[in-house]
Amino acid sequence: MFNDEKVLPQAEIIAIGNEVISGLIQDTNGRYLSQQLHLLGVNVLRITAIGDDKNCISRVVEDALERVDIVITTGGLGSTYDDITKDVLAQIFNSKMILDNRVRSMLEVTFKKRSQKIPANLHSQYEVPEDATILYNNKGTAPGFLFKRDEKKLFSLPGVPLEMEHLFDTYIASDLKKIQKGVIDHRIIKTVGLTEASLWEKFGPVEPLAKLVTVASLPSYLGVKIRLSYCSKNTEQVKIRLKEAELMVMTSLGKWVYGKDNETLEGKVGELLKEKGKTLAVAESCTGGLIGHRLTEEPGSSSYFLESLVAYSNEAKTGRLEVPSALIKKHGAVSREVALAMAEGIRKTSGADIGLSVTGVAGPGSSDKKLVGTVFIGISEEKKSNCEDFIFYNDRSRNKERSAQAALNLLRRWLLNLKM
Amino acid sequence: MFNDEKVLPQAEIIAIGNEVISGLIQDTNGRYLSQQLHLLGVNVLRITAIGDDKNCISRVVEDALERVDIVITTGGLGSTYDDITKDVLAQIFNSKMILDNRVRSMLEVTFKKRSQKIPANLHSQYEVPEDATILYNNKGTAPGFLFKRDEKKLFSLPGVPLEMEHLFDTYIASDLKKIQKGVIDHRIIKTVGLTEASLWEKFGPVEPLAKLVTVASLPSYLGVKIRLSYCSKNTEQVKIRLKEAELMVMTSLGKWVYGKDNETLEGKVGELLKEKGKTLAVAESCTGGLIGHRLTEEPGSSSYFLESLVAYSNEAKTGRLEVPSALIKKHGAVSREVALAMAEGIRKTSGADIGLSVTGVAGPGSSDKKLVGTVFIGISEEKKSNCEDFIFYNDRSRNKERSAQAALNLLRRWLLNLKM
Repeated sequence: MFNDEKVLPQAEIIAIGNEVISGLIQDTNGRYLSQQLHLLGVNVLRITAIGDDKNCISRVVEDALERVDIVITTGGLGSTYDDITKDVLAQIFNSKMILDNRVRSMLEVTFKKRSQKIPANLHSQYEVPEDATILYNNKGTAPGFLFKRDEKKLFSLPGVPLEMEHLFDTYIASDLKKIQKGVIDHRIIKTVGLTEASLWEKFGPVEPLAKLVTVASLPSYLGVKIRLSYCSKNTEQVKIRLKEAELMVMTSLGKWVYGKDNETLEGKVGELLKEKGKTLAVAESCTGGLIGHRLTEEPGSSSYFLESLVAYSNEAKTGRLEVPSALIKKHGAVSREVALAMAEGIRKTSGADIGLSVTGVAGPGSSDKKLVGTVFIGISEEKKSNCEDFIFYNDRSRNKERSAQAALNLLRRWLLNLKM
Repeated sequence: MFNDEKVLPQAEIIAIGNEVISGLIQDTNGRYLSQQLHLLGVNVLRITAIGDDKNCISRVVEDALERVDIVITTGGLGSTYDDITKDVLAQIFNSKMILDNRVRSMLEVTFKKRSQKIPANLHSQYEVPEDATILYNNKGTAPGFLFKRDEKKLFSLPGVPLEMEHLFDTYIASDLKKIQKGVIDHRIIKTVGLTEASLWEKFGPVEPLAKLVTVASLPSYLGVKIRLSYCSKNTEQVKIRLKEAELMVMTSLGKWVYGKDNETLEGKVGELLKEKGKTLAVAESCTGGLIGHRLTEEPGSSSYFLESLVAYSNEAKTGRLEVPSALIKKHGAVSREVALAMAEGIRKTSGADIGLSVTGVAGPGSSDKKLVGTVFIGISEEKKSNCEDFIFYNDRSRNKERSAQAALNLLRRWLLNLKM
């Protein structure tokens, strides 16, 4: 999988909880830990979710300790009757339970602040396995534990993400940094507007890139992400390789790339608007407010985003946006003509430099004799305007998401003056 | 874990992909499959995520086939070089590859629609293991497979959620229904407006409920969900138990319950508006369009939702909503007075029966001398109006989400005439 991975320590993650295994909640701890471990040069082999079952926990933990150097469990450390992780681990490591005064005094302080006594059901939290190192938790009631067997380590963390992350950062990351032998790092290049097949066709042969780094292509209905990964003992070398690979991708696909790693399309658009000193207003129909919602996820968006008008009714289109009702009558609310009139209307009535509009049929029904998934996106500035049309084929929610993505991408290309 | 679970067939789910094991993407397939399998009376013992590694896939698949009756793998069926699931499974089941004409002709039809030939890198998709039953996929390019060993079944599905769900529904669900021996079912009761602690305080002793069904309490920053579960050979018995438990919860917590199972707060609000024949318009500031987005997730929302105005700038508030600029000057844009004026303004200018408004400081910065997280929510009808205020303490995104949730809840209570 990775270039140099054999030099690295190996880990497994075990998520424990009936609520996870029954599908009631999504386990997100596995992903968080996996990302963090990679950055610390630890290769993750498995993430296993299991229920609060004694035999199953024992077996999965023992098997993982056979295979890898580091095992991290999450969950099952609470104080309700189905939380059994601590007892099962104590048995696995032949450790008897003792009382820990520091856990008790930490809880006392917490409850004193609320002028309360420690509830009886939390008393079991002071009982800890004698042979474990205690990972004191000041973000919750359950401490974590570190058990050792020969050179191997097992960390047991609570399942609440906030507490799990806190204990990982406080105890595990610092521990692993001491033995760090290398780094696995990634660069994610995010594209919009191409299918996976046409993206790789435009890129050409992938071999030169694949010689440099490990490449993964991650398609979704909002765009394709390209992940470049490299692993080495030499941290500097990892940076250089990823930079080189990134340049190779940008050279052929730059026009379709809106950002990397944690960057977002709405962030890119915001950056461009700020750079050019332009303001924006949006007229949304089928997206229902999603474009405004995405734009305002960016801190500071109030400096360029003036307003969004969700003109769901025809009255809002004619009244607020001054779209002539004859135009709607002639072409239908979902049409090129109305999209352009909406973009111009929101620009003029709001006083923004740029008007962006979306009108379409999200589905499942269509009152407009247009196919479900038909979407028109308009953009208007004082001296020029444009409209693009799309036919998506998805359900209501996805059509809304794809329409918002296409609208933000049209705006990005408009601001960059990119012809496609 | 469940009352009668030993009578049920057992399954394991295996998510295959470097992008999952490295934490690049969140696997959501495991959760989906686990939920669906439970409803079909299949108990899930493990969900394991592993990379695209031949030895690891072989070992995990063989081990799972030892333990359980049904194994479902997801991922690794694409046509890029790191997709190896099909080949590894063919080896495990000693099956050679043959060409499948139906897979090819389905691809031909798909690409003909786009006036294209099948790209060369997709040709490997017609190669299928001779001994597998093919699960034809008309939502994507990769077919799924069913392998059998004695009484045990292994289903291999693509990793793209839409395709995975489609093949599960088409092939696996119907197959499992034939051998269904019992049901594990859940009822989720969704509440809003109470913390977990105050919710259970209002409920009183949980024991009578816990005698009837298995109870789980799932808090999040948007509200608390209560899950009631029961398992039995007798499907009718499961329904009766869950109904009885649901009634017990509704009796004490009904005012805070907005729905059950897949119901949403925006759906509930939409239902109430339709029932009462009232129309709605929204003036959003800090939520940026999220309320409109949520309202329009409901099919048919155009019958009651007229428009949302995302008045991010003060000009939009005064111009579009006719909020007196003196009012903004005197009290600040984030104030009770402005929230009420926005609600009245959107109602009057849109012609809707009800106007709903939100104004607040989403953060991270505040230009208004108000604390980050301060939010005012206004509601206006012809003869009455109301305003509630909140202080949230989270990041920008969560403050937006909590504000939208609080606004929709205020509207729900308004429509139901509920005093809290």
